[in-house]
Amino acid sequence: MQKRLSELAELIDGEIEGNKDVIIKRAWGIKEAENGDIVFVDNEKYLSLLDSTSASAAVVSKKNKLNLSRREKPLSLIYVENPSLAFSEIAPLFTSEIPKPAGIHPTALIGKNVQLGENVAIQAYVVVEDNVKIGARTIIHSGVYIGQESCIGENCLIYSNVSIRERTKIGERVIIHDGAVIGSDGFGFSTRGGVHYKIPQLGSVEIGDDVEIGANVTIDRARFDRTYIGKGTKIDNLVQIGHNVTIGENTIIVAQTGISGSAEVGRNVTLAGQVGIAGHIGIGDNVVVAGRSGVTKTIPKDTFVSGFPAKPHKQEKKIKACIQRLPKLFEKVSKLERKIN
Amino acid sequence: MQKRLSELAELIDGEIEGNKDVIIKRAWGIKEAENGDIVFVDNEKYLSLLDSTSASAAVVSKKNKLNLSRREKPLSLIYVENPSLAFSEIAPLFTSEIPKPAGIHPTALIGKNVQLGENVAIQAYVVVEDNVKIGARTIIHSGVYIGQESCIGENCLIYSNVSIRERTKIGERVIIHDGAVIGSDGFGFSTRGGVHYKIPQLGSVEIGDDVEIGANVTIDRARFDRTYIGKGTKIDNLVQIGHNVTIGENTIIVAQTGISGSAEVGRNVTLAGQVGIAGHIGIGDNVVVAGRSGVTKTIPKDTFVSGFPAKPHKQEKKIKACIQRLPKLFEKVSKLERKIN
Amino acid sequence: MQKRLSELAELIDGEIEGNKDVIIKRAWGIKEAENGDIVFVDNEKYLSLLDSTSASAAVVSKKNKLNLSRREKPLSLIYVENPSLAFSEIAPLFTSEIPKPAGIHPTALIGKNVQLGENVAIQAYVVVEDNVKIGARTIIHSGVYIGQESCIGENCLIYSNVSIRERTKIGERVIIHDGAVIGSDGFGFSTRGGVHYKIPQLGSVEIGDDVEIGANVTIDRARFDRTYIGKGTKIDNLVQIGHNVTIGENTIIVAQTGISGSAEVGRNVTLAGQVGIAGHIGIGDNVVVAGRSGVTKTIPKDTFVSGFPAKPHKQEKKIKACIQRLPKLFEKVSKLERKIN
Repeated sequence: MQKRLSELAELIDGEIEGNKDVIIKRAWGIKEAENGDIVFVDNEKYLSLLDSTSASAAVVSKKNKLNLSRREKPLSLIYVENPSLAFSEIAPLFTSEIPKPAGIHPTALIGKNVQLGENVAIQAYVVVEDNVKIGARTIIHSGVYIGQESCIGENCLIYSNVSIRERTKIGERVIIHDGAVIGSDGFGFSTRGGVHYKIPQLGSVEIGDDVEIGANVTIDRARFDRTYIGKGTKIDNLVQIGHNVTIGENTIIVAQTGISGSAEVGRNVTLAGQVGIAGHIGIGDNVVVAGRSGVTKTIPKDTFVSGFPAKPHKQEKKIKACIQRLPKLFEKVSKLERKIN
Repeated sequence: MQKRLSELAELIDGEIEGNKDVIIKRAWGIKEAENGDIVFVDNEKYLSLLDSTSASAAVVSKKNKLNLSRREKPLSLIYVENPSLAFSEIAPLFTSEIPKPAGIHPTALIGKNVQLGENVAIQAYVVVEDNVKIGARTIIHSGVYIGQESCIGENCLIYSNVSIRERTKIGERVIIHDGAVIGSDGFGFSTRGGVHYKIPQLGSVEIGDDVEIGANVTIDRARFDRTYIGKGTKIDNLVQIGHNVTIGENTIIVAQTGISGSAEVGRNVTLAGQVGIAGHIGIGDNVVVAGRSGVTKTIPKDTFVSGFPAKPHKQEKKIKACIQRLPKLFEKVSKLERKIN
Repeated sequence: MQKRLSELAELIDGEIEGNKDVIIKRAWGIKEAENGDIVFVDNEKYLSLLDSTSASAAVVSKKNKLNLSRREKPLSLIYVENPSLAFSEIAPLFTSEIPKPAGIHPTALIGKNVQLGENVAIQAYVVVEDNVKIGARTIIHSGVYIGQESCIGENCLIYSNVSIRERTKIGERVIIHDGAVIGSDGFGFSTRGGVHYKIPQLGSVEIGDDVEIGANVTIDRARFDRTYIGKGTKIDNLVQIGHNVTIGENTIIVAQTGISGSAEVGRNVTLAGQVGIAGHIGIGDNVVVAGRSGVTKTIPKDTFVSGFPAKPHKQEKKIKACIQRLPKLFEKVSKLERKIN
């Protein structure tokens, strides 16, 4: 697989500066690139890497044209509106596609009264329990377990060793990465005399269309109603979602975040990495919670919060700045004290 | 499945206020409830939701009777001692039970010299290695791996894709959720010249009766003796328990908490979500560690700690309050300075 | 399996003080040890446990000889240079070895054009897709999934229910614990009008020789080039490694740490438990990041950092000490204020 630079520029509607005929053999990262590679720079602060890279060509933003034109460049450039998006169109040209699974593997165990849509693919050693429904063109990789009465929509992609417990409802075009667990029991106990008795977790999990769920994520089933993930929400690896949590549409939840039981997260929210959300609170629409924050109270919509306990980011920043200057404050107060006494 | 309210009230020994004959079709959450649903309110601060819910009936506490009797109510009430417990008796009436697995599936691979108690159920694609012992009525879901010489007690419930490494001992009535790993090697290395050499992890994991272990939890085997989880302890999803840790009875460990190697956690302890416990320290009986705390030193029994490093909660609260007021303190000190100079 | 103490002392080149002929039946931990057990003490602060243990013998450091010789001892001692290392030679004598898997199990599904080295062992219900290469003497436990065109070196040990996605490259002598996921899609989206569109993750994961990867770890594949783990690096349970991360040689990453996309971690780095590393930053060689730190900026080599945001440990310690004394500072400032006004 190799392409002339001019072919690539045409594909992404870009303008070439430099050698239009250079041959490109690979799409790669700017730091590790070699001769014959094409790279991209999206963030202006990495533009200086263009001087040191061994790549043969780079996709860059039109905005940087004036600035870049003045430099002496060891490589050809393609100017486009959005280098990251453009590069996503170029990269697949240099990657052969992995053939997709097709058909029902003879070792897949399909229970009674299971409805499979057309062109469903089920790989080896999958277990589909009774009364399950799987929509057309959905692909289930090997080792997946699907519990009774669960329902998976069309065009989903379920990777290997995923566990989907009974009565889970999954929408269309949902992607679930390897090892994720959907529908495990909520963590609910009633304590009498120091002994914890299990509260039955009779509810289910419902996942909207276009949701993506990362590797080894855990989403607990509700106590009696449902845990709900809204359409278009994207969940990164190792995230924990407690029972009865509801999450709105198009929310982003970064790796290792934990959301405690019965919390209500709005739509278009961003929870950055390793965030914790306390139980029974609300996170309004469009809220951004910075990485490693711990949210202990309801956050109104359109707010950017950080810290633990999470508070408006400006306020947290001011406090953090004060904390940095604490040793000096202590000195200053000691001096004042000496002066006065 | 539908029930008259009077039937439900009788079941939970409750007193009805309102229409005794209303027909209930579902047990549901108060915020999403519809006509025909029964809900419950345990926490007084949610009582106001009774005015807005579309539910037909609610289970509430006797303590709130006077207060609630005065309001104009759109729905019927059942007064009981403990609404949460009572609701756990009602909810199953509206949920059909999923049939339990029975028998040994023909694809389950049972090693040599394996002892299976009566009515053990082993589902598809389970691998049970040689010299394993599984007690009566224990259910093993599909895709589970049980290593050599492991021993699982009676009436356990092991969900799909769990990995139990060799020589693990599991008590009776233990529940292990999908994807959990019990008995992986402890993280131990001996470093010479910058290179890390593996210290063999020859010990095992022992889990007491009535323990519950969440989805994708990891519990490492000991270096040579044992990692130990006491009877009745409940462990939430994605918790990490290092090698040689010992945990007492009836302790609660909430999601994403990590306990480092050789820590000793007492009985009736609560470790809230995302807590970290340093290695080789002790956590006394009845200690409560607040969410997101990092415990770096031994904590005496009957203490409530929070923060990082964790300290008595009152002290941490005072410090946190001071931190909030830091910007004002800085201003105040600047003023004093100006006055004096 | 029982041994005379003199035999053990000879094995580890140690000097006995006490009864050379005592019979040892087990290697165990000092706190739970019983009569007939041998234990060890590495850290001086645990030497006092020698007075209370029920063990029959202990391996201790030569450095403590003078001190220990004066005490009245209820047990025999073996003095050695390095008690921990010596104990690792003794412990296996009391542990029978578990037989290693051998051969290709008839239920293992091996795809087309798969190359298997000599004496590869593949257990039950493993799925090896087309065009995979597995080096000599590598052992694959049951339930593992290996995607197309992946390549695993010689003498590796892959535990049960691991998922290795397509085009992953794994070196020699790599150990991967149960439930780990290697090569899941990076978490990358392009957001237009509030909707998140998936950026294809076309790259791969490359893992160097002698790497160890803990249970339920997740390592994402790169957007188009590779996520890279250097030779000899050891990764504990439940660690998350984002797409395009590169990690140098002999680095230690403790449990529940998360490394965001495109971060570059050097060699001989230590990331202690529950650390977070922001995306696109660098961690220099030999850096130590203390437990629960959050690193938001590039850290130069040979630095010890802690806190959030992470800063040089001395500075963080000074700040933490100030924070402890904040309530007193507030009082002091109030007094000064009263005096002046």
